[in-house]
Amino acid sequence: MDSIFSDRIADVPRSFIREILKVALDHSFISFGGGLPNRALFPVEEIKVAAVKVFDTFGSDVLQYADSEGLKVLRELVSRRYKEKKGLDIPPDRILITTGSQQGIDLMGKALVNEGDDVVIDEPCYLAAIQAFSLYRPKFHPVPMNENGMNVGIFKKLMSKIKPKLIYTVPNFQNPSGISYSEATRRAMAGVISGTKSILLEDDPYGEIRFAGKQLPSFMTMIPDNTVMLGSFSKIVSPGVRLGWLVAPPALMEKVLIAKQAADLHTSNYIQSIVYQYMIDNDVEKHIKKICECYGRQCQAMMDSIREFCPSSVTHSRPEGGMFLWATMPEGASSRQLLDLAVKEKVLFVPGDPFYIGKKDSNTMRLNFTCSNEAEIRMGIERLGTAMKKLLK
Amino acid sequence: MDSIFSDRIADVPRSFIREILKVALDHSFISFGGGLPNRALFPVEEIKVAAVKVFDTFGSDVLQYADSEGLKVLRELVSRRYKEKKGLDIPPDRILITTGSQQGIDLMGKALVNEGDDVVIDEPCYLAAIQAFSLYRPKFHPVPMNENGMNVGIFKKLMSKIKPKLIYTVPNFQNPSGISYSEATRRAMAGVISGTKSILLEDDPYGEIRFAGKQLPSFMTMIPDNTVMLGSFSKIVSPGVRLGWLVAPPALMEKVLIAKQAADLHTSNYIQSIVYQYMIDNDVEKHIKKICECYGRQCQAMMDSIREFCPSSVTHSRPEGGMFLWATMPEGASSRQLLDLAVKEKVLFVPGDPFYIGKKDSNTMRLNFTCSNEAEIRMGIERLGTAMKKLLK
Repeated sequence: MDSIFSDRIADVPRSFIREILKVALDHSFISFGGGLPNRALFPVEEIKVAAVKVFDTFGSDVLQYADSEGLKVLRELVSRRYKEKKGLDIPPDRILITTGSQQGIDLMGKALVNEGDDVVIDEPCYLAAIQAFSLYRPKFHPVPMNENGMNVGIFKKLMSKIKPKLIYTVPNFQNPSGISYSEATRRAMAGVISGTKSILLEDDPYGEIRFAGKQLPSFMTMIPDNTVMLGSFSKIVSPGVRLGWLVAPPALMEKVLIAKQAADLHTSNYIQSIVYQYMIDNDVEKHIKKICECYGRQCQAMMDSIREFCPSSVTHSRPEGGMFLWATMPEGASSRQLLDLAVKEKVLFVPGDPFYIGKKDSNTMRLNFTCSNEAEIRMGIERLGTAMKKLLK
Repeated sequence: MDSIFSDRIADVPRSFIREILKVALDHSFISFGGGLPNRALFPVEEIKVAAVKVFDTFGSDVLQYADSEGLKVLRELVSRRYKEKKGLDIPPDRILITTGSQQGIDLMGKALVNEGDDVVIDEPCYLAAIQAFSLYRPKFHPVPMNENGMNVGIFKKLMSKIKPKLIYTVPNFQNPSGISYSEATRRAMAGVISGTKSILLEDDPYGEIRFAGKQLPSFMTMIPDNTVMLGSFSKIVSPGVRLGWLVAPPALMEKVLIAKQAADLHTSNYIQSIVYQYMIDNDVEKHIKKICECYGRQCQAMMDSIREFCPSSVTHSRPEGGMFLWATMPEGASSRQLLDLAVKEKVLFVPGDPFYIGKKDSNTMRLNFTCSNEAEIRMGIERLGTAMKKLLK
């Protein structure tokens, strides 16, 4: 039956992470494999209140069809928060509400990418972005990351040769690496992109989950005509609402809106209303602070445990926010083999290779620190250390 | 800036219906232009209860990331209802929950259609399906409808020449025509498709909203290996939840699931839980009966009013369910010109041409009867009759 499929779908591999998540349902495992926020921090009572109150605020129309752009008051709220938190002037009509920021990635691929078009990505790169773009069959140009973000030298050299449609980045606390782009990297890249027709897609789902360091300027402040931003309520409210947004220049917005309509007409009006009501009725900034403090402690527990239990040859990134830490074993060590050993110790992680284009194995791995408490993190890293010692002996 | 766009997005026109919906916000207008269910029938109190109760049933995980396939108990519920209502055996693992059935259309395009592939559609055809498929740049083959559905003679002749990837149909109370495929049409088409590799996409958002006639066999009972079904909670619960489903053969499901993950990871877990809770806690069949009775009266009011107020040369379909009626003026009359006159009378409808491929005008129009009460329908058709008399004088 395979012949009936489109070429675009035949190319995409099944998600390795999905498979790992299924094993993780066995509760004797400690999993650093998923990318889940800590559910203990979900504002359950507040959401219950909002889900009822929206009918007083908006009437029964919260259950009706609605505009593809998204709920106006919610777009205004996103606009206000950009002003207050980042000093950015983003009018509401440049904001499109999406069904999670994942949809923003897909819509950008749909609106911009022809088969064979050049798309620049970080290496390693957010896996679901690789998958979403793959469906539009681009030519990927992975640029290796260093501790300051995308390697600027390699990026400059690449940009002298190609005119990419898209440059995809997660500049704050990247998934999978936990690395943030330095200000120098941002400015240097912006300088190269300025004046070209390339669109830099600034995916920022974790931006507000900062527990160390200071906020750095968004690409939107440096190259507004070339930047599309993605934001998400997944990490500040909860992922189960599937609610995000996209900020685009007007000419691009018109096309993205067509893609949005074709994709799902609009994002659930009821969910949009609930999140709006929740956001205006509660001290959200205090809640975000609580999330940041919790994740900061969990990240610290993971770094401390790695030092305590893992071989000293293992290095790792030092995230200032977000949900992930990236660990690197000595050159030549196999994180796929490590996973086999780790499963026996009942601990899970994601080997690094799926975050690269065309790699089958690597000496790297992604460790999530948000979905286990500090005691579990310590126990899990102890198990991982045991597995590493067996592998590297 | 246009050169940066993908070829697929450059081709798609802005939705005419969207523009009409914006005018419809002026309350002195009576609009038959939208495709909105009657909000007076939304189960507001029941949804409020469900939105709170789900936290007792499922815990805080309703706000967490979830499986791309959709909530298992909801898929089991859809499976049970197929058995009870249509006698169909559809195991839950052949059901994918989608963000509205519109997403099902998009996912099918994504999973199956290469540029230039043949796609057969009804003429006229559901507009948002044309838009969604257009993004994958197929070659459309519109087959004219008669009062029994797709013209079987033309379909047979076409199928002797091409091997389409997809045949898109809305066999029950089609949008825009209100026409249902007869049993003979279904069987004849199934006979032609059986044994080929073509997929018939049986889009059935209105199937349960039947107020006259009797249920006819689904293509799924006749050619299960060639059929993909789409269903929706939009008309039986409410559209604002953006919740639908897709039923596919296993080999196809695997590919559709990849497209779903790339599109939005999964549909809101919270919304899925709410609709599940609503469905099991309430007498949904009684509620659907109430919707059917209401829409039946509204449809009858529209047909009676057309006879009373419109020129006798105007004919129309006689829907047995759904939300739309299709009116036809004498050959050569322009429904675009009619719309200009109708706007002056403060009544709106959708001219027929956007439902065709490449047509700029026609003598046809779509009239929605679900979003106005019987008195409004009578008044609106009286206004429309005035406009028609001016046009056809």
